[in-house]
Amino acid sequence: RVMYGRYTQDLGVYAKEEAARLREGSQRRSVSERSRTLDLLEYDKGRCAKCRICTVRCQKFLISRVGEDWIFLILLGLLMALVSWVVDFCIAICLQAQKWMYGGLDSNVFLQYLAWVTYPVVLITFSAGFTQILAPQAVGSGIPEMKTILRGVVLKEYLTFKTFVAKVIGLTCALGSGMPLGKEGPFVHIASLCAALLSKFMSLFGGIYENESRNIEMLAAACAVGVGCCFAAPIGGVLFSIEVTSTFFAVRNYWRGFFAATFSAFIFRVLAVWNRDEETITALFKTRFRLDFPFDLQELPAFAVIGIASGFGGALFVYLNRLIVQFIRKQKAINKFLMKKRLLYPALVTLLVSTLTFPPGFGQFMAGRLTQKESLVTLLDNRTWAKQGIAEEFDYISHSQAWKHPQVNVFVTLVLFIVMKFWMSALATTIPVPCGAFMPVFVIGAAFGRLVGESMAAWFPDGIHTDGTIYPIVPGGYAVVGAAALSGAVTHTVSTAVIVFELTGQISHILPVMIAVILANAVAQSLQPSLYDSIIRIKKLPYLPELGWGHHEKYNIRVEDIMVRDVRYITLNCCYRDLHDVLLTGHLKTLALVESAESMILLGSIERAQLQSLLSQQLGRPRRLEYIRERAAAEKKRLSVVSNPGSEDGSQRANHEVRFQISTEESSFSPTRPVPQKPLKPALKRPSVVDRPTEIPTSQQDNSGIALKNLFCANPETEGMEVRDVICPLQSSPSSSLLLFYFLQIAEWEEQQLDEQVNFNNCKIDPAPFQLVERTSLHKTHTIFSLLGLDHAYVTSIGRLIGVVSLKELRKAIEGSVTVKGVKVRPPLASFRDSGTSSSENEATELHKLWDRHKSMSLPREHVPSDSDEKSQ
Amino acid sequence: RVMYGRYTQDLGVYAKEEAARLREGSQRRSVSERSRTLDLLEYDKGRCAKCRICTVRCQKFLISRVGEDWIFLILLGLLMALVSWVVDFCIAICLQAQKWMYGGLDSNVFLQYLAWVTYPVVLITFSAGFTQILAPQAVGSGIPEMKTILRGVVLKEYLTFKTFVAKVIGLTCALGSGMPLGKEGPFVHIASLCAALLSKFMSLFGGIYENESRNIEMLAAACAVGVGCCFAAPIGGVLFSIEVTSTFFAVRNYWRGFFAATFSAFIFRVLAVWNRDEETITALFKTRFRLDFPFDLQELPAFAVIGIASGFGGALFVYLNRLIVQFIRKQKAINKFLMKKRLLYPALVTLLVSTLTFPPGFGQFMAGRLTQKESLVTLLDNRTWAKQGIAEEFDYISHSQAWKHPQVNVFVTLVLFIVMKFWMSALATTIPVPCGAFMPVFVIGAAFGRLVGESMAAWFPDGIHTDGTIYPIVPGGYAVVGAAALSGAVTHTVSTAVIVFELTGQISHILPVMIAVILANAVAQSLQPSLYDSIIRIKKLPYLPELGWGHHEKYNIRVEDIMVRDVRYITLNCCYRDLHDVLLTGHLKTLALVESAESMILLGSIERAQLQSLLSQQLGRPRRLEYIRERAAAEKKRLSVVSNPGSEDGSQRANHEVRFQISTEESSFSPTRPVPQKPLKPALKRPSVVDRPTEIPTSQQDNSGIALKNLFCANPETEGMEVRDVICPLQSSPSSSLLLFYFLQIAEWEEQQLDEQVNFNNCKIDPAPFQLVERTSLHKTHTIFSLLGLDHAYVTSIGRLIGVVSLKELRKAIEGSVTVKGVKVRPPLASFRDSGTSSSENEATELHKLWDRHKSMSLPREHVPSDSDEKSQ
Repeated sequence: RVMYGRYTQDLGVYAKEEAARLREGSQRRSVSERSRTLDLLEYDKGRCAKCRICTVRCQKFLISRVGEDWIFLILLGLLMALVSWVVDFCIAICLQAQKWMYGGLDSNVFLQYLAWVTYPVVLITFSAGFTQILAPQAVGSGIPEMKTILRGVVLKEYLTFKTFVAKVIGLTCALGSGMPLGKEGPFVHIASLCAALLSKFMSLFGGIYENESRNIEMLAAACAVGVGCCFAAPIGGVLFSIEVTSTFFAVRNYWRGFFAATFSAFIFRVLAVWNRDEETITALFKTRFRLDFPFDLQELPAFAVIGIASGFGGALFVYLNRLIVQFIRKQKAINKFLMKKRLLYPALVTLLVSTLTFPPGFGQFMAGRLTQKESLVTLLDNRTWAKQGIAEEFDYISHSQAWKHPQVNVFVTLVLFIVMKFWMSALATTIPVPCGAFMPVFVIGAAFGRLVGESMAAWFPDGIHTDGTIYPIVPGGYAVVGAAALSGAVTHTVSTAVIVFELTGQISHILPVMIAVILANAVAQSLQPSLYDSIIRIKKLPYLPELGWGHHEKYNIRVEDIMVRDVRYITLNCCYRDLHDVLLTGHLKTLALVESAESMILLGSIERAQLQSLLSQQLGRPRRLEYIRERAAAEKKRLSVVSNPGSEDGSQRANHEVRFQISTEESSFSPTRPVPQKPLKPALKRPSVVDRPTEIPTSQQDNSGIALKNLFCANPETEGMEVRDVICPLQSSPSSSLLLFYFLQIAEWEEQQLDEQVNFNNCKIDPAPFQLVERTSLHKTHTIFSLLGLDHAYVTSIGRLIGVVSLKELRKAIEGSVTVKGVKVRPPLASFRDSGTSSSENEATELHKLWDRHKSMSLPREHVPSDSDEKSQ
Repeated sequence: RVMYGRYTQDLGVYAKEEAARLREGSQRRSVSERSRTLDLLEYDKGRCAKCRICTVRCQKFLISRVGEDWIFLILLGLLMALVSWVVDFCIAICLQAQKWMYGGLDSNVFLQYLAWVTYPVVLITFSAGFTQILAPQAVGSGIPEMKTILRGVVLKEYLTFKTFVAKVIGLTCALGSGMPLGKEGPFVHIASLCAALLSKFMSLFGGIYENESRNIEMLAAACAVGVGCCFAAPIGGVLFSIEVTSTFFAVRNYWRGFFAATFSAFIFRVLAVWNRDEETITALFKTRFRLDFPFDLQELPAFAVIGIASGFGGALFVYLNRLIVQFIRKQKAINKFLMKKRLLYPALVTLLVSTLTFPPGFGQFMAGRLTQKESLVTLLDNRTWAKQGIAEEFDYISHSQAWKHPQVNVFVTLVLFIVMKFWMSALATTIPVPCGAFMPVFVIGAAFGRLVGESMAAWFPDGIHTDGTIYPIVPGGYAVVGAAALSGAVTHTVSTAVIVFELTGQISHILPVMIAVILANAVAQSLQPSLYDSIIRIKKLPYLPELGWGHHEKYNIRVEDIMVRDVRYITLNCCYRDLHDVLLTGHLKTLALVESAESMILLGSIERAQLQSLLSQQLGRPRRLEYIRERAAAEKKRLSVVSNPGSEDGSQRANHEVRFQISTEESSFSPTRPVPQKPLKPALKRPSVVDRPTEIPTSQQDNSGIALKNLFCANPETEGMEVRDVICPLQSSPSSSLLLFYFLQIAEWEEQQLDEQVNFNNCKIDPAPFQLVERTSLHKTHTIFSLLGLDHAYVTSIGRLIGVVSLKELRKAIEGSVTVKGVKVRPPLASFRDSGTSSSENEATELHKLWDRHKSMSLPREHVPSDSDEKSQ
């Protein structure tokens, strides 16, 4: 159950698994019982019995099969293909509706404009509002978040049914508006949601779905399915999802991805055939370039130029996108306004974009009337649009006519299209709706490629090839190259090459595409992070930057150069006070457990939450109550011996007084307050506290008092309560003046409790935390951290703890910047965390809050440092 | 330098790196000196000076750039493209020569047969002989070995220049013979060789090439280059190499692979264009299927059938291949005969195969006159060969005519081709020459696909599509599917799909190909290991079997179920005797170091070799000599006091006697021999041995004596020496009879030395060996072992060592069989081992040998067990 020792964090999972095992056992039992009834039934040879036998057998078979991976993958593929097809279908209907409205109103340009503009504004606003209300997690691409999740971080509420609904409906509306948005990123998220929900659903049948590491593997496959069924590109989908989400991947998952993505793409295309959209299964954007001579060797420089330019373009796109987001965030006036009316920003952006694309307006110069899909189809056309600089007459009626303008050259149209769409896409992808940027970038890239291709065709009207046959230049091929290069540059992937082959159904341009994609990547990677990494940084998700190519110095930095030497640790024989102090100073999620401060032999690590619960167990309400009750009983006994017991009425009044006293006490507790009942104390001294000094120095008294309050409230649930709730069982206390004495007693008790040695018996200790040695290189540390998805690792030297390296130090060492806080990094390669951990984080903050209050309340005198403080320095 | 703590094993590497750093430093210094001279030169404004400045600058620039990854990758790609092209060119010439010979002798069938048969026999025999003599490591595919190397095992002599030469020349000859062999596997090996040699070469310029973990990354890229430049299939090459060689893969390496493979494929194809073989860059086996309607949806069942049948076929191929190897090995009579004449087996197999393919003979029924490449081209032809069961007249002159026989149906030809080639390929790949099996299998698959396609075409002469247009069936498409499916089944990969797209230049059949490949994989993986895994098992290389799909029980097995609880360990305060005993009993390469036998706190692990050197330091020759010298000096002093010193002459004679005495002593040393000088001993007793009993019991005496001998020879270098060499410094020993007394003294000294506490100060301890906990699941253990390439991991419980799991236990748990011994597994993810370690293994065997001799020499009495023996039980 536990991966190389993440013992502590997985107990919840373990319990789950045990439960699943028990359940399985009972299932097996019930199956065997069923088979017994089966035997019995077979004696009774009625028809109905046969039917029943058959049913029982089928049931048995199904239950035994339902745990198989391939069943899950097929179901996932099927589901996603259906989702993808339905979404596509709805989007097509939406776009048709817009066209129909626009076409029907051609008598009045103003009405036409109103219809053209209102429709997308309404859809986008609805999408933004719906997503905002139902599940704000559904906003955006989803790939950055999936990368973070697969990296090992738990993002709450990210894989729920609500998010699924919000994402699907939001995406449909957003894309139906005709804005330059993509469906690829969201589909990765939707597929992951599907996988997570399907896992949950399937776990009703078999225990195997309870296994969390399996679920992560399935999520990896789901990402592939998402891309695969979005483009009907199984191979490209698998590769793209790997490049975008992983640093290391298992070949096992790669097969799973292939299987599910192929099935999904197959069903997706079969649905199109069944719907009579297509005659048979072909590519989504089929091209018809000539096969025998796809391109000349001398055209390669042009392809290389496309690649390099796309690299710069891609970096610019990422930069622009980030700039817009940061601008919106920084401008506080704008921000406040937009935040108040959350839907105003999407509406404004949509209005701007759709106004500019209005076909009778500026849109006529940039093929504004074409949808994204139509533009792509026309851009990949295998016919040449221009010859010798003059636009040819299009002798066929098709969407390509949109590119032709009576007054304006086709080159101008293309340039305008590229420039306008570029900033529009960068702007549109910042709208808070579920949307991706892949498809818009892809179209822009295709347009750029087309531009270069048309220029080449105009330059060399008879092609470049010199001997014999004339092979004219195919601008469509340039468009393919451009699309792959620009999308590759923006996402920092090379698998866009495979995606274009699968999208166009032709692989003849493989070498130009590969060369352009690689060049584009080389340029873009050296200038900007990928779009997804950029979003990760904007969203402040935890990440580990990649080691670039050829950074030699990375091989020479050692762990000893970057590690934190001042490790917070606890010793086996430490007391609760040490725990308390360590908890208030450290920041890591786990603390090292060493044998002793002298030997420093690392024994394991303990989660913060564990220590907090240890502490609250020791000083928590139940034990406190018990102590008070004990005290009270002893007091009562003593009093009943010393004096006569008071009347029922009197004791009740006393009780009232007590309550009053305490509530005022609580609200006005001050360390400078005189302690009147001090003389009483010696009389009440119990044998166990005999060795403590009778005269408590003021400062310590203060501390105790506050610690008392602090500890009454240590449990966040009890914080809001009145102290009297705790004390009210003290019904028999004779006088209100005695109460303050009790307080002191409790303070003393608690001091005493803090000095007790910690009992680690019930504590979940991770017995084998990850260890490095001083001389481990940064390169290897990076490899290990990304391989295992570590959050931190201890540095040891022959068993002795000498330092700790966390993701933060590593990131600093690699890039020397950005620190991200407050996001929980999951233990290595493992599993979703049980929901309990988020509350533990709350606990920590509560503790900090209390600590702060404590400080502000106590006098400016220095807190007496305990010995553990000195130790941990 | 050290990866999470493999401190001990990497010191050699560390030293290397330090050296490299120093070298770099000095380089930098020399560069700065150069730039100073540059400045000086610039004053002197002569022409020659300018030239020199330019040269110096270029040199400076080159040196600074030479360490970049992309330079290395481009060089590697270029080199491999050239190698691939040259090899292809030579093979083509060889095959042409055979055709020419065969064609020229068409007057006489017998002469023709002789030429047809002799030519390949000579070539194969030469190839086998050449490889055998130069580098036997070059035999076979190379993919299994590369998988093992990338898994982390050091295979000696596997990446040397000799092997490179043997592999390239052997492969060219083997393929030039026209036997059904492939070049893919060997190319993976050749590319790795290139990368390793290039690394070595480049390390002359920059220190970065000394980094071993970088070299492993480059090897992974090289594997991709190998496949990529062999088929001009960069994408397929990368994916295939990943699937075949890795379990976990870094996306970093995947980019490297893409870059190098694309460059390599590009150059490879450009060379063809420059050589006027091609007009432009196109696919290797270009197909011309129609694009608009590649296949009907109703043809999918036929594709599925191809997939499933290929799955069975692939499993059968692997089984057959293994069967042949095992048969040859088992048949001792055959084996002996073949071993004596190592070249007889290749010659016989070649004779058999080429006889059967002789075109005028049986070859006419199986298109025997076509080379592998020609067969593939004809099989992928887009024309249909048969209509309604009757072979059509081929109305064009091409190689396709070879498939047509006047008497025999084309179906029969195809079936015969498939059946004959199937066993021929399985047999031919067992010949000890450099060869792969991918290409033959690919051709057989294409033939099988063609067979199904032709049958379908015969069955539905007008195609299946019902409405409107007639789309006849394209048997060539079936051939593509069959080729991908069968090669996928044999190698257990799905990327063969991508390879066929890149090979044929068409991707229109993507869904049928993917479906068939996945089905073929599903069937084949459930029946047999992949061909490469099969070879790994045959060759007894260390491996970790894959966890199959949906093995639920794997999630429920825990480490505690499979771990070895009886761990060999040493304690911090152990004595040398314990070391000695532990070394003789354990089998693992490293031993656990615990704090004490009571606490069992794991402090680290120590390599066997380290302990051996510790032991030999303590008891080795230098200390022994020193002791003897000391003793001698003391003796001399004492004697010089007691008696008069002998004459020069006398002492020399005594010396001679001593020598003689010892040499006989050594040869006839027997424990039962009386010890005459015993009475002398007390007189010579040194203060330090005062506490030992004077009367040594016989058994201990024997032990000591033998241990003495044992320890004189503990160092393998000294083993061969005469003992007199050791003793000869004892020039002053007064008599030969004293010598035996010395022996006893030494035995005693050594006993005493063994009881001393071990000083671990100079010992390299791995301070953080990998740890698991009891409840880690088998699934996760498998993941970790394959992620990190572990050999073994300790199982701890809160710092206490409770067990150990090694690759063996893991393998047993997964498959419950095969144990492989004697191959060294490398530390996690790391680097080639420094050459020193192989000798340490020798040392171990030496020690064992000595131990065995010791046992046979000593009396059958039981060895007195020391307390450490009891401990380690």
